[in-house]
Amino acid sequence: MQWELKFVTSNKHKFEEAKEILKNYKIKLQWIKMSVEEPRGHSVEEVARKSLESLLLFRKVPSWSFLEDAGLFIRALNGFPGVYSAYVYSTIGYSGILKLMKDVKDRYAEFRSAVALYDGKRVLVFTGKCSGIIGFEARGIKGFGFDPIFIPEGFSQTFAELGEDIKNKISHRARALQAMAKYLLGLSGDTNEKV
Amino acid sequence: MQWELKFVTSNKHKFEEAKEILKNYKIKLQWIKMSVEEPRGHSVEEVARKSLESLLLFRKVPSWSFLEDAGLFIRALNGFPGVYSAYVYSTIGYSGILKLMKDVKDRYAEFRSAVALYDGKRVLVFTGKCSGIIGFEARGIKGFGFDPIFIPEGFSQTFAELGEDIKNKISHRARALQAMAKYLLGLSGDTNEKV
Repeated sequence: MQWELKFVTSNKHKFEEAKEILKNYKIKLQWIKMSVEEPRGHSVEEVARKSLESLLLFRKVPSWSFLEDAGLFIRALNGFPGVYSAYVYSTIGYSGILKLMKDVKDRYAEFRSAVALYDGKRVLVFTGKCSGIIGFEARGIKGFGFDPIFIPEGFSQTFAELGEDIKNKISHRARALQAMAKYLLGLSGDTNEKV
Repeated sequence: MQWELKFVTSNKHKFEEAKEILKNYKIKLQWIKMSVEEPRGHSVEEVARKSLESLLLFRKVPSWSFLEDAGLFIRALNGFPGVYSAYVYSTIGYSGILKLMKDVKDRYAEFRSAVALYDGKRVLVFTGKCSGIIGFEARGIKGFGFDPIFIPEGFSQTFAELGEDIKNKISHRARALQAMAKYLLGLSGDTNEKV
């Protein structure tokens, strides 16, 4: 079976990333360029699920559409910026995060991603996580968002230095999309899908 | 006519403040202690209105119930923490704000409040604002939230130093509640009520 999915997002970077990742599974991707009003939620899973459900309520999105929600959770800041990462990025940016993390010893942070997929009947949610640390300065020009200050576990460079080849293998979003792809292709009976 | 209103909030401080303020207008206040799931919104008005509307949809709140949403909007931080003030306070606190404002010359900030009232038929929204600056350090122990770092215009002390007598005259919340009280008592034909 030849899969073709639709990604609902206003973010071109996210679309391009997802397209590359899903190509490895021979899954084609269409872009539904649409800005989605984000509901509040306590986790990226909840936000992604509620976003898609409200789209299904108010507008018609076709079967095999998905959307994604992601956030950066910094341990020393009690999970901030978390599910409000997009808002925080648009106001204080990564320089604000660096300022908040000045003189903070515990640098642990993780990116979390949740992909919500409509299979025509239900909303399925797949998740991915990428652990790492917050750097002491911004480095690199690739990627987007908080990439210049996030150094994934096992590396010494930021996502913005590493570039898409590596990021698309190990990132939170890559892992959530891989989980979805494997589920669709029947490659794994054991998914992290949550109903 | 003897007015008696109901304030829907989980925050005891807010209830006590409102009770004192409305007492000046001989309006009695009951506490409906309830935690309300806050919807996202671009302004405190939108958040307050949507919150009350969703309560009206899903549970019954009686006529003449109101709730309130407030936020601290800092100019140099592009309005951060804004409508997410409660979340930001619970994660990085006022010390996080002080850190973000370190070495920032433009200290201007304003507190905004919106009170949404259900009159049995409609939701009415009243707003209040209090301009001031962000101090360079936390001072005072009265009040709650960001009070220790906010110095209202015309004063040299923070809300947390000034205490309730002054705060309850000039604060954003006081002004929104005063606007509601005047509307109810017919003291002013010209309100900032927005339908």
